Amino acid sequence: MLKRVLIANRGEIALRVIRACRELDIETVAIYSTADESALHAQIATRSLCVGPARAADSYLNQDAILSAALATGCDAIHPGYGFLSENPDFADRCVEAGLKYIGPSGDVIRKMGSKAAARTLAQQAGVPVVPGSDGPLRDVEQAKELAAQVGYPVLLKASAGGGGRGMRQVDGPEGLESAFHAAQAEAIACFGDGEMYLEKLVLSPRHIEFQIMADSQGHVVHLGERDCSIQRRRQKLIEESPSRALTPQLREEMGRAAVAAAKAAGYVGAGTVEFVLSPQGQFYFIEMNTRIQVEHPVTELVTGVDLVKEQLRVAAGLPLSFTQEDIHVSGHAIECRINAEDPEHDFRPCPGKTEFLHLPGGPGVRVDTALYPGYEVSPFYDSLVAKVLVHAPTRLEAIRRMRRSLEELVIEGYPTNSALAHLIMHDGEFVRGQYDTSFLDKNLPRLLELARTCDTLTAE
Amino acid sequence: MLKRVLIANRGEIALRVIRACRELDIETVAIYSTADESALHAQIATRSLCVGPARAADSYLNQDAILSAALATGCDAIHPGYGFLSENPDFADRCVEAGLKYIGPSGDVIRKMGSKAAARTLAQQAGVPVVPGSDGPLRDVEQAKELAAQVGYPVLLKASAGGGGRGMRQVDGPEGLESAFHAAQAEAIACFGDGEMYLEKLVLSPRHIEFQIMADSQGHVVHLGERDCSIQRRRQKLIEESPSRALTPQLREEMGRAAVAAAKAAGYVGAGTVEFVLSPQGQFYFIEMNTRIQVEHPVTELVTGVDLVKEQLRVAAGLPLSFTQEDIHVSGHAIECRINAEDPEHDFRPCPGKTEFLHLPGGPGVRVDTALYPGYEVSPFYDSLVAKVLVHAPTRLEAIRRMRRSLEELVIEGYPTNSALAHLIMHDGEFVRGQYDTSFLDKNLPRLLELARTCDTLTAE
Repeated sequence: MLKRVLIANRGEIALRVIRACRELDIETVAIYSTADESALHAQIATRSLCVGPARAADSYLNQDAILSAALATGCDAIHPGYGFLSENPDFADRCVEAGLKYIGPSGDVIRKMGSKAAARTLAQQAGVPVVPGSDGPLRDVEQAKELAAQVGYPVLLKASAGGGGRGMRQVDGPEGLESAFHAAQAEAIACFGDGEMYLEKLVLSPRHIEFQIMADSQGHVVHLGERDCSIQRRRQKLIEESPSRALTPQLREEMGRAAVAAAKAAGYVGAGTVEFVLSPQGQFYFIEMNTRIQVEHPVTELVTGVDLVKEQLRVAAGLPLSFTQEDIHVSGHAIECRINAEDPEHDFRPCPGKTEFLHLPGGPGVRVDTALYPGYEVSPFYDSLVAKVLVHAPTRLEAIRRMRRSLEELVIEGYPTNSALAHLIMHDGEFVRGQYDTSFLDKNLPRLLELARTCDTLTAE
Repeated sequence: MLKRVLIANRGEIALRVIRACRELDIETVAIYSTADESALHAQIATRSLCVGPARAADSYLNQDAILSAALATGCDAIHPGYGFLSENPDFADRCVEAGLKYIGPSGDVIRKMGSKAAARTLAQQAGVPVVPGSDGPLRDVEQAKELAAQVGYPVLLKASAGGGGRGMRQVDGPEGLESAFHAAQAEAIACFGDGEMYLEKLVLSPRHIEFQIMADSQGHVVHLGERDCSIQRRRQKLIEESPSRALTPQLREEMGRAAVAAAKAAGYVGAGTVEFVLSPQGQFYFIEMNTRIQVEHPVTELVTGVDLVKEQLRVAAGLPLSFTQEDIHVSGHAIECRINAEDPEHDFRPCPGKTEFLHLPGGPGVRVDTALYPGYEVSPFYDSLVAKVLVHAPTRLEAIRRMRRSLEELVIEGYPTNSALAHLIMHDGEFVRGQYDTSFLDKNLPRLLELARTCDTLTAE
């Protein structure tokens, strides 16, 4: 097994990794920035080292400092967590070159999956459905017409060089295609000096469904079911659950098989997530693969009973997976609410501050992953996620009710959070019925915020 | 279902009941004493009423005040928790007479099980083994000799009126019986003015094994496996786990059947616990039945996935059990450590005080049941239990390691606790191997305390 692991991260995920290491009798080395001297991860690790100033570029992204720290403290492996260096293929390569085990897939795999085009090609080769469209740039408007007819309207015309919605047009039928093509191309040339266009089928009212996979260096790949992450605000996940109400057992099996095929095709090792969009008609398309542990991984841990971080450590040590596909059974229902230090009343702007009072929910079926403690100062330099509140119960309705009471028990004083908003979503009819897609929050946010304003008891929380 | 439940208790168990009610959309009425005005249970219930001064006799044991509160607030049921009025048959009767549902068995059943002699007779009639001995007072020393030869040495001679070890003698063989009988009887007459004696087989190195049972008013009785509660200090349980290392699958089945038989014979309804002593040779004997929810019930909840308090509420509302014996599967291993505000260095004297700082363990497989919050003043008027730290993991060793790291994460400042002692027990060879009986703590306490003194890092916690 591993002897000493450096955790190249901070916050709750650093704590999560330290907990797994402790339970496996692995020593831990925490790194911290000058802003994080009193952070919990730095206090609780076997040993802690300051690697630089508060700005992430100077500390948590400072590869030289982190590699030096790992070597100086005699570590045999590095866990990148999520964010920061966790999807940087060069860092993975440098760890290995320095004689350290990188807890994750190889730099090559991270690189391949980091390129949208390469990942799409890889998925196609593995027989995994991708969003239908042009496999490369469009020659002209005629080819666009042919392709659109083939994949079916509505379609999205996108500038290859585009971004932020510029050079992009939604086209609902053949009559609008030609003018949209020219308008988008003109915009692309004006904005980016590049008129190269491609086309994609537009999946309406999609669900964001992702499959957790675990793979070992012996070539075994197992999926651990899905997470429905459709409750998002501007592509930021807010609430995740497993299993998804949108999946039939057959669809779950098909998508799980596809996720495993994609991971196998990539030569994947470690924990990873295969993300799909799912149409209301039950068609699913590969979008991308995240080559790291994810924020929402505990949702899967609760319904499968598998400790994903321990399994990452085992796999990195060269051990085979401790389970087969047949061993994985999803039991009950789990929900996660991400609690952020942010102000929903002011466009969710991050609101760092001192934790003046803290009461976390407890009792049956509740799990909280947080690095908060009473008096802890939330730093303005990093992500605004301060706690993950998770529940597990035999049924979805029981899980929702458990989440309601958990959020009612949660008290964080010192800065605003999105806790009351999450609590309102737990009472929303569409959410409770499980009838939602990725547009849920953008569509309902004004109404929910208005409701929060009128519910004194909730906003006071 | 029930509409509004009064919780005739305080502390973590009151909170536990409130949580179950909330998740079932049942309103709650908390009662509190003047000492508990800022207690969490009083803050979190739908409604709270002060029922009297700090002294339990004036508040939490004040039946008139509690019944008035329940009626005045329109409750339809009363949950007694554990301790206080939870095993008072007259209170159960009075609830029913007042038109309230008592969440527990009938007064008659509580009364029957509260009498050691009646419970023993009932168990015998149900075919459940009891500790062999005289079924009533001994006629003379000759009968004692006969019986002792029959049940096998060593035996215990006990004065019927005895207590505190007076009028009691252990006899290891026939040669010592006569003199011991006369000495014990003389002591009993001197102490209690009553020379009536009885005799019991002495079970050496016993384990304390208890079975959780649930029964509904339709006559279904199901057991939910055992808890090993052998880690005790002066008969106070400190650490509990499930499953027990001492039970073979066959023994578990036999004891479970016996527990169900005892509950059926009693006409039991609700949650209850059948307690046994288990000899190292695998012989088990009924001791008593606890007619209430127990402190250590979450151990069973973790390994079975059953919410025992919700089930109590369902059963009290007249619903049948939501599971059959075949539905109950024990999965993984769970351990509970009771954290008390007490000083192990001064004979475990209770140490109430203000909670100056609080950090509770979290992450995967950890459950904490506590009514503590930062700043909370632990009252000198009540029990010293301040938190129950529980872990659940796939194997016993993983559970032990998880408990170690959980106790390392636990920080309570403001008064001493037994947390470091529990942590040392998690490292003790006999405990880790599962080779312990009820004498474990009394035998090892001096050594463990000495160890705690020399481990700065532990005592500093």
